[in-house]
Amino acid sequence: MLPQVITLTTDFGARDPYVAAMKGVILSRCPGVAILDLTHDIAPQNVVEGALFLAGAAPWFPPGTVHIAVVDPGVGTARRPVAIAWRGQFLVGPDNGLFTLLLDQSAAEAAHVISNPAFILDTVSATFHGRDVFAPAAAALAVGADIAEAGPAAGALHRLPLPKPVRRPDGGIDGEIIHVDRFGNCISNISAEGFDTARPWRVQAGDVRFARIHRTYGDVAPSEALALFGSGGYLEIAVNGGNAERVLGLSRGAPVSLEPA
Amino acid sequence: MLPQVITLTTDFGARDPYVAAMKGVILSRCPGVAILDLTHDIAPQNVVEGALFLAGAAPWFPPGTVHIAVVDPGVGTARRPVAIAWRGQFLVGPDNGLFTLLLDQSAAEAAHVISNPAFILDTVSATFHGRDVFAPAAAALAVGADIAEAGPAAGALHRLPLPKPVRRPDGGIDGEIIHVDRFGNCISNISAEGFDTARPWRVQAGDVRFARIHRTYGDVAPSEALALFGSGGYLEIAVNGGNAERVLGLSRGAPVSLEPA
Amino acid sequence: MLPQVITLTTDFGARDPYVAAMKGVILSRCPGVAILDLTHDIAPQNVVEGALFLAGAAPWFPPGTVHIAVVDPGVGTARRPVAIAWRGQFLVGPDNGLFTLLLDQSAAEAAHVISNPAFILDTVSATFHGRDVFAPAAAALAVGADIAEAGPAAGALHRLPLPKPVRRPDGGIDGEIIHVDRFGNCISNISAEGFDTARPWRVQAGDVRFARIHRTYGDVAPSEALALFGSGGYLEIAVNGGNAERVLGLSRGAPVSLEPA
Repeated sequence: MLPQVITLTTDFGARDPYVAAMKGVILSRCPGVAILDLTHDIAPQNVVEGALFLAGAAPWFPPGTVHIAVVDPGVGTARRPVAIAWRGQFLVGPDNGLFTLLLDQSAAEAAHVISNPAFILDTVSATFHGRDVFAPAAAALAVGADIAEAGPAAGALHRLPLPKPVRRPDGGIDGEIIHVDRFGNCISNISAEGFDTARPWRVQAGDVRFARIHRTYGDVAPSEALALFGSGGYLEIAVNGGNAERVLGLSRGAPVSLEPA
Repeated sequence: MLPQVITLTTDFGARDPYVAAMKGVILSRCPGVAILDLTHDIAPQNVVEGALFLAGAAPWFPPGTVHIAVVDPGVGTARRPVAIAWRGQFLVGPDNGLFTLLLDQSAAEAAHVISNPAFILDTVSATFHGRDVFAPAAAALAVGADIAEAGPAAGALHRLPLPKPVRRPDGGIDGEIIHVDRFGNCISNISAEGFDTARPWRVQAGDVRFARIHRTYGDVAPSEALALFGSGGYLEIAVNGGNAERVLGLSRGAPVSLEPA
Repeated sequence: MLPQVITLTTDFGARDPYVAAMKGVILSRCPGVAILDLTHDIAPQNVVEGALFLAGAAPWFPPGTVHIAVVDPGVGTARRPVAIAWRGQFLVGPDNGLFTLLLDQSAAEAAHVISNPAFILDTVSATFHGRDVFAPAAAALAVGADIAEAGPAAGALHRLPLPKPVRRPDGGIDGEIIHVDRFGNCISNISAEGFDTARPWRVQAGDVRFARIHRTYGDVAPSEALALFGSGGYLEIAVNGGNAERVLGLSRGAPVSLEPA
């Protein structure tokens, strides 16, 4: 019998013992589970960044994986703790929009508010549901509890109003930069899906214009800028061997357009 | 048979191969063990910060867990390497006060100086006992060696002289900020334990005065400051959706008082 | 049967979902594997730093370990993806010199270009071989595939032209600082191996002169500088309880010499 896997995605950083306490609770309730850190470096309380991270991570995991995600500025208020069945995996965290992009990809197979005392610690603090609610709920799922036992059906889940790209009359599309990664690559919300990439396209990103879309960084000279569809399937502005954010002055929210060439 | 768990708490950071080398030694001597990072971001050589971190982390783990902790400015000098039995768990590291707060919570069940050659590498460097002494000692405990085999009984363990809060004649208490977390929450050494939280209290933190103690961040308006007992059970000064350290100008060592309202 | 171990060494950082996606691919193809982070904090695209890190980490792991290393500025260009058998372990990554120092320690037992479709994802992006090539190749090796099945023999592997220390006529040696660690310790390329450490030596590092080589940091007064052979076996300039890089103004590339005293 293979060990269950529980992953952790938080904005807790590593300086404080918050993540460590969650790991202790998980192991106490699900001995033998494999715990995997995905990230603890989501910007503090930035639910949008958490949602983007999860969209690039969770789809790659096998069925049965339990993901805990905690970016939770509303902890202790009316926002609900939820457990969601999704593509045979489980998502556990606050119902504050963190799972918006995953639910855009595939609908929830089930969603329950976490309220069963067997899914939470005996004493629940008002400020740390990662340890007191989400860790024990994930452990309960990992040891085989039915998600329906977590509590009442959740009904409609909270969704973030994320910027969506807009089709242009000329067949092009207007979008924006939604994430800058560690390398300074500026990633837009324009997806390759449904795009005729065989046709030639021009790209406008802020003040910078690109005559075509390249395939990879090394297709242009070192220190030269380019546009390409990145590994997540989104149009990305990059600099070969350099940092597009710094070199081109782009940042989150900058407009990006694709136009027929 | 479940895999043994060894956790790691260090000030080594992730840029250097020190933690990786420890993991290799552990796996070489205890194949199949589960290795969990708790943190490697303790401020370099800051034993007090390490002790505070462990106090918030280790109590949540199940019996049988082996914790390695290395914040060790005195490596290679007379300070002793020790293995401690504590609440059915094991603590392995330098005897320099790192375990002070855990030992304040519960007495050691046993404590031994690590000197048995079977518990250490054949060649021990003068500067990296994490790899050469603590990793193999933890592996020995994880494969089932008796802690008494580690070496002679350690006797009294080194304790840090940490600031303790002082009771006031009016029933209040004078303490100080001992940690600022990633979110800027300023955590004091005033514990909720033994406090009549049903009674009304006022809080003074540096120049800031609070008329009452709240339950969670969302109990006040966004960007408003509050005092609350945090998830670790200590009085904490926070800003809802903001950073109390920056907004209020508080930092480690700032005085905090609880007074009857 | 013990779980296989796959380690990860990258320059991806933790803010982006790149490492998480690799973990998902590995688990999907090798359920039950133990995944260990070594580091994700190699400076972006710094292959030399990656090679130094691996040299301090991989030798400590037991036979059978599979190491994935991705610092890959040439992703998507002609540089080859390779799988290497080394001391009973496996190294998987780009053939761009990342493994230079490991191969200086011990020759490859086998090296193959990764091209077998069973070792890679069905769709391979041009920009993220960590997820699409190296993760599935490592998973294939971890589930027991023969390395020869990965693809054709690789022949000569790419080596980095790293600075080598030079013997002096007086028996001394001229080297340089090749790495500054988290504590500010300045580590040179002068190895203790083959050195008569019983003889007295003087050390010159930049403008600083040391009359002898010490054994450990605590051998000198607090805040005092010293030279010692560090835990990796290399001559190192340090400050007891302080930061040699800042205090002495040393940095990568600074000359270091050992001279008979």
